[in-house]
Amino acid sequence: LWLIGARGSVATTVSIGLSALRRGAMPTTGLVSQLAPFAHLNLINFDQVVIGGHEIRRPRLIDEAYKLHESTRAFERSRVDDAAADLEEIDACIRPGVLHGVGPTIAGLADAEWCGAVLPSAGEAVQRVAADLEEFRRAHSLARIIVINLASTEPPFDARTLPTEWDELAAQLAAGTAVLPASTIYAIGALNAGTVYINFTPSVGSDLAALQQLARLRRTCHMGRDGKTGETLVKSALAPMFAMRNLEVMSWVGHNIFGNLDGQVLDDPANKKTKVTSKDALLAEVLGYAPQTHISIEFIRSLGDWKTAWDHIHFRGFLGVPMTMQFTWQGCDSMLAAPLVVDLLRFADRAARDGAVGELAFLASFFKSPMGSHDHALAAQFQQLTRWAAERSNGAKPVKD
Amino acid sequence: LWLIGARGSVATTVSIGLSALRRGAMPTTGLVSQLAPFAHLNLINFDQVVIGGHEIRRPRLIDEAYKLHESTRAFERSRVDDAAADLEEIDACIRPGVLHGVGPTIAGLADAEWCGAVLPSAGEAVQRVAADLEEFRRAHSLARIIVINLASTEPPFDARTLPTEWDELAAQLAAGTAVLPASTIYAIGALNAGTVYINFTPSVGSDLAALQQLARLRRTCHMGRDGKTGETLVKSALAPMFAMRNLEVMSWVGHNIFGNLDGQVLDDPANKKTKVTSKDALLAEVLGYAPQTHISIEFIRSLGDWKTAWDHIHFRGFLGVPMTMQFTWQGCDSMLAAPLVVDLLRFADRAARDGAVGELAFLASFFKSPMGSHDHALAAQFQQLTRWAAERSNGAKPVKD
Amino acid sequence: LWLIGARGSVATTVSIGLSALRRGAMPTTGLVSQLAPFAHLNLINFDQVVIGGHEIRRPRLIDEAYKLHESTRAFERSRVDDAAADLEEIDACIRPGVLHGVGPTIAGLADAEWCGAVLPSAGEAVQRVAADLEEFRRAHSLARIIVINLASTEPPFDARTLPTEWDELAAQLAAGTAVLPASTIYAIGALNAGTVYINFTPSVGSDLAALQQLARLRRTCHMGRDGKTGETLVKSALAPMFAMRNLEVMSWVGHNIFGNLDGQVLDDPANKKTKVTSKDALLAEVLGYAPQTHISIEFIRSLGDWKTAWDHIHFRGFLGVPMTMQFTWQGCDSMLAAPLVVDLLRFADRAARDGAVGELAFLASFFKSPMGSHDHALAAQFQQLTRWAAERSNGAKPVKD
Amino acid sequence: LWLIGARGSVATTVSIGLSALRRGAMPTTGLVSQLAPFAHLNLINFDQVVIGGHEIRRPRLIDEAYKLHESTRAFERSRVDDAAADLEEIDACIRPGVLHGVGPTIAGLADAEWCGAVLPSAGEAVQRVAADLEEFRRAHSLARIIVINLASTEPPFDARTLPTEWDELAAQLAAGTAVLPASTIYAIGALNAGTVYINFTPSVGSDLAALQQLARLRRTCHMGRDGKTGETLVKSALAPMFAMRNLEVMSWVGHNIFGNLDGQVLDDPANKKTKVTSKDALLAEVLGYAPQTHISIEFIRSLGDWKTAWDHIHFRGFLGVPMTMQFTWQGCDSMLAAPLVVDLLRFADRAARDGAVGELAFLASFFKSPMGSHDHALAAQFQQLTRWAAERSNGAKPVKD
Repeated sequence: LWLIGARGSVATTVSIGLSALRRGAMPTTGLVSQLAPFAHLNLINFDQVVIGGHEIRRPRLIDEAYKLHESTRAFERSRVDDAAADLEEIDACIRPGVLHGVGPTIAGLADAEWCGAVLPSAGEAVQRVAADLEEFRRAHSLARIIVINLASTEPPFDARTLPTEWDELAAQLAAGTAVLPASTIYAIGALNAGTVYINFTPSVGSDLAALQQLARLRRTCHMGRDGKTGETLVKSALAPMFAMRNLEVMSWVGHNIFGNLDGQVLDDPANKKTKVTSKDALLAEVLGYAPQTHISIEFIRSLGDWKTAWDHIHFRGFLGVPMTMQFTWQGCDSMLAAPLVVDLLRFADRAARDGAVGELAFLASFFKSPMGSHDHALAAQFQQLTRWAAERSNGAKPVKD
Repeated sequence: LWLIGARGSVATTVSIGLSALRRGAMPTTGLVSQLAPFAHLNLINFDQVVIGGHEIRRPRLIDEAYKLHESTRAFERSRVDDAAADLEEIDACIRPGVLHGVGPTIAGLADAEWCGAVLPSAGEAVQRVAADLEEFRRAHSLARIIVINLASTEPPFDARTLPTEWDELAAQLAAGTAVLPASTIYAIGALNAGTVYINFTPSVGSDLAALQQLARLRRTCHMGRDGKTGETLVKSALAPMFAMRNLEVMSWVGHNIFGNLDGQVLDDPANKKTKVTSKDALLAEVLGYAPQTHISIEFIRSLGDWKTAWDHIHFRGFLGVPMTMQFTWQGCDSMLAAPLVVDLLRFADRAARDGAVGELAFLASFFKSPMGSHDHALAAQFQQLTRWAAERSNGAKPVKD
Repeated sequence: LWLIGARGSVATTVSIGLSALRRGAMPTTGLVSQLAPFAHLNLINFDQVVIGGHEIRRPRLIDEAYKLHESTRAFERSRVDDAAADLEEIDACIRPGVLHGVGPTIAGLADAEWCGAVLPSAGEAVQRVAADLEEFRRAHSLARIIVINLASTEPPFDARTLPTEWDELAAQLAAGTAVLPASTIYAIGALNAGTVYINFTPSVGSDLAALQQLARLRRTCHMGRDGKTGETLVKSALAPMFAMRNLEVMSWVGHNIFGNLDGQVLDDPANKKTKVTSKDALLAEVLGYAPQTHISIEFIRSLGDWKTAWDHIHFRGFLGVPMTMQFTWQGCDSMLAAPLVVDLLRFADRAARDGAVGELAFLASFFKSPMGSHDHALAAQFQQLTRWAAERSNGAKPVKD
Repeated sequence: LWLIGARGSVATTVSIGLSALRRGAMPTTGLVSQLAPFAHLNLINFDQVVIGGHEIRRPRLIDEAYKLHESTRAFERSRVDDAAADLEEIDACIRPGVLHGVGPTIAGLADAEWCGAVLPSAGEAVQRVAADLEEFRRAHSLARIIVINLASTEPPFDARTLPTEWDELAAQLAAGTAVLPASTIYAIGALNAGTVYINFTPSVGSDLAALQQLARLRRTCHMGRDGKTGETLVKSALAPMFAMRNLEVMSWVGHNIFGNLDGQVLDDPANKKTKVTSKDALLAEVLGYAPQTHISIEFIRSLGDWKTAWDHIHFRGFLGVPMTMQFTWQGCDSMLAAPLVVDLLRFADRAARDGAVGELAFLASFFKSPMGSHDHALAAQFQQLTRWAAERSNGAKPVKD
């Protein structure tokens, strides 16, 4: 498991959590992959996973873990104590991240000495990413690597400027003329190295024609975009209800507040735009028409990792009568995202073992903007996942003896 | 369409609504049966429906309609003005209702002169119900009758005292020794007369072994119990989300407040018990375990028909972290129930045309406690409905020329 | 009573309401001036009030009233029917409004023919306003005029460009060089004519050193700014609670959504800025420190006049424990504002009879940004009002026989 | 400081908090007595307080503290580590409590060996309470003792059976015929010993004519009932807002859920009745009329000490338009109550130094059912407190050198 943004809150939680799971020190609550329909899949065990990653900041991972404990008041301090050795090992496998096209807010968080003062060309950066992965594979004799992007949201990237053929893009990279955002550089590095690339962020990543071609060429698979953890998850469960009852949604307002590093980045209007766009697509797809929507995301420092969302749904029923539903979601962001990262690792690992190539559309239920899928209704997406599982036999063991 | 509780808020709304639909005076918002998957079913048209019913109170239907307009502030007064002639016609088709086993609160609402001072035996009451239906059929040359129970909730009825064989129950009825609640008396009258019986209330109705036998004997069909209109509808959309994400629901509290006649009846602890039991079954079925639940229903006069529910869901995620979701539902009860009544009429009519016998389990999505079905997840229930529709050809016209 | 914005929702509600009150056709709910502490003040009766006003749009007032009835579903249609004659009389007393410095969004709503194609100089506009008031006084033989500004919010106006001496400003007006927003033009016209000017909007109005001088010179009184009707009213009741308990407010987020004409104007970022600034001052004043705050106002068409606010208060208690309070306010904006307008009319009329000069600081409880007062705690503000009342004897009759 | 219920959550929090305050290890957030208007009062310092108390259970106080840390996730584990020595000292000063009239639910929590198998007569119990206090005073050479009742809520007690004269009650006690609830036994013991008795619970305590006489006879003071910590605190801030705006409250529904020991006791309908009665008095007093109210308190285990309240306020404004306000309060019960206990200690200590006799009505703002006061509006109550403070000079030092 290779995490981009390896010292962020989500990655830190993944690391603490996998450590506890490995030791059998906590229940598997929150893990989709532990549900009954997936029991026969012979998914990778928690103790078969080695973690490394890219990161642009240079605190110690264990300090990030203690900070997370303190700011969230969500889990016991002893969780970190107990994971200390594992966290130190992971820390040793973290390499400097890529800063292309991340915007000034993210760049401002980076440690200049660690990341290098001069920005290399996109092509060079791709090489470095691939080399980091290769070294990780070799050092730990890994059967395969799943790269999961957990970095902060980049500003929107205009994909129309890019060639749609991989050959052309490769030529630009070689010539040093390609302009690409970090998420895509990571994706190319990963796919080119034949590893699996999963994009848990709203950034563009591998969601480009040329990269889809690349994945097919390298016989590997990828998926994304934007993990569905909180407010949008609820939306994808609730919006179908209005559709199934033929109740007309007139407006749907969502107000999100939180105060973690991710929130600080989203406080930059450029980065926020990417996120809002990703959150807003669902309703029109599910309902078949576009009600007025408004999504706001505000950085409220005191909330830390506790993402609070208030949604107000104004709908019309029989005789045209307007009615209202409101909900408040108070979730600890990293605690919601981390288990999905573990699930994606396990499902993608199984798909890769089975030789899957291209987009892993059966993972749509995990994403706000699922690649290769237009169904946003949660139950339908979940059915895609269980159907995929039902079609699979027990399969080979995940790791060769 | 024969409505039990024909001057109640839901029935009044059905009557106003069908009148408007017949005249093309309003959109079909809220009608499930108007959705695309059902377009080919050749469902009965709004102008092919004649309405009659049973009722224990004796106000004029049109006055109830004006009162509903005033208390809900939900629809225009002109809606009632325009439906006046239709409402008067319906009023003329309403017959005195049955008061067996309804408890003192409902009995206290009844008009003694209209319902008769002396309670007949259950057997005689069944006869009268059947005769009323027969007369209605004859007077309007009806192809078939769909009876829908919209009466207030009865106190719990202990079904264990009843014979499970229809023959035995029929003998008790003939002998004058049967003790039955009104909802069951209506059901027997309806099924015995070969009409369709749909129970939109939590009362027991036809949900008894002997009546299931009766329905099969008479080659007719039935379904129930308890229309799923508001808070429970949302539950059935949301609870699967927690299950699909393996989030552990620790407690789910639902607090319902409203002030219509139904609320007044539910203010009686005996009647409330039936309702709470019906609302509470869902979670354990969907989640596979039973979290602590608490459901309260309180009569708050000022709210009238505006049923407001606050739900508080306390759940646990990764690392055992507790999180919270709350929602508030502010719905106009009759406006939510009435279109479902029209849908049930149309779907049941189609099923009856096709010769369906026994429980109409494909209608599970409409009920809090669906007969013949243990699936409470809304999306799965809706799939039952669309699958049923997909298996049907256009079918014959609903009414013979 | 002279209303600026005389065909807006608030003014329309004032007109309907005063008509009903005059006829004794409704209770006085919502009127502060009807509370016990003010019973002895001999306030002006509802039937002693004549209404006129300025307006930039040219629909018939009665049509606005019917539209308000339909869009709010808040009051009976017959309320408008019954007020028809009064509304027609008021309509005849409405004169074209002023468009200086209102910004393109408000200007875009104006009827060009009615308001005049060419913008006069500020000085000429002042003259016209004063002339309109004078004509109104003469036509109806009025004892005094209370001008209340109910117009939409103007963009921020930089008062530092203005002279602080009335003489200087008067000279600029005469010379045609003064640049003033409409709210200030109305205020000068009103004060210069010796009438009372009350600013119910967040626009600058008379809140300028030069105009305070003018009011004193003309021996008349004025007050403002920004009627406190909903979310801010609640804030001014709740924030003192946190202060009194020494609970530290870490953040206070307010999210406002509504869809009336006012909302449409506030959808323009320039106009919105004035409003947000006005809503945001309170907390720091009441708490004595400035927690992080975020106020958003979004135009959601389907809500019409129903202003819905969600507030999230994050605070810290003993042992530093963070806790949360949330509230949702669902109020019909015009119904909340209109009675306060009537109250301001009555209290200001009494103050004017008593010879009050300058700012009427005792009216602070009615305003989000009360002139001449730094106390934002509702209870303290209300005490100012009751103390003022207690100091007054019954006083003379409001109108000479 | 003598706490009745000395190992309950509130008392445990008081003990942890005073320990931290003494060491200067935390800010004084939440302490009313630290606000500016009370700075000159020379209130007792945190390091001048010695804690003892009565309790019916026998866990170690420090274990209760760790349990509170774990169940609330509200404060750091190190808070308990650091207070360990202090907690052990307090533990040594805890004496067995009284079980008269507490009802079976509270009695079921008691440790039989610790409390004694046989219930003594009320008179004997009073003696024992007084002896415990006397011993505590002697052992620590205390200048004075403030007894604060933090025990769980007793079932309602019918005071009409009691004599209103102390002499008569004293005679009954001596004769062994008096039937009294524990809260009153503690109160008599405390007042008879000349100490101050403060009742932070809804139980009857000293709120009886005979005990008021006793307090005057012994020249000591007392106050109560029922600490105002959460939902009712908000009510007392919000209800006056509706009154001041002449908005008619039609209904006010409050739904409280929580899962601590207190909640378990209130799950017994008898004990709950006392609490609901105490919470419900406020509205009619503040509004001047009695809207429909409904208060429910439900025991939801998973919430532990996190008391969550949802309030729904249905009110009517101008033109009779109904509107709605809802709030959700998510507070950690003990963290809200504990600082008030410290405040009451400090204010009551000062009053006792000044020679106050009888009810301390100036402390009304701390109580849901304040003795000697009918004003429930928070701002007015707070004014009583600041006025009392303003009337006091610096006063003597709290403890003699």
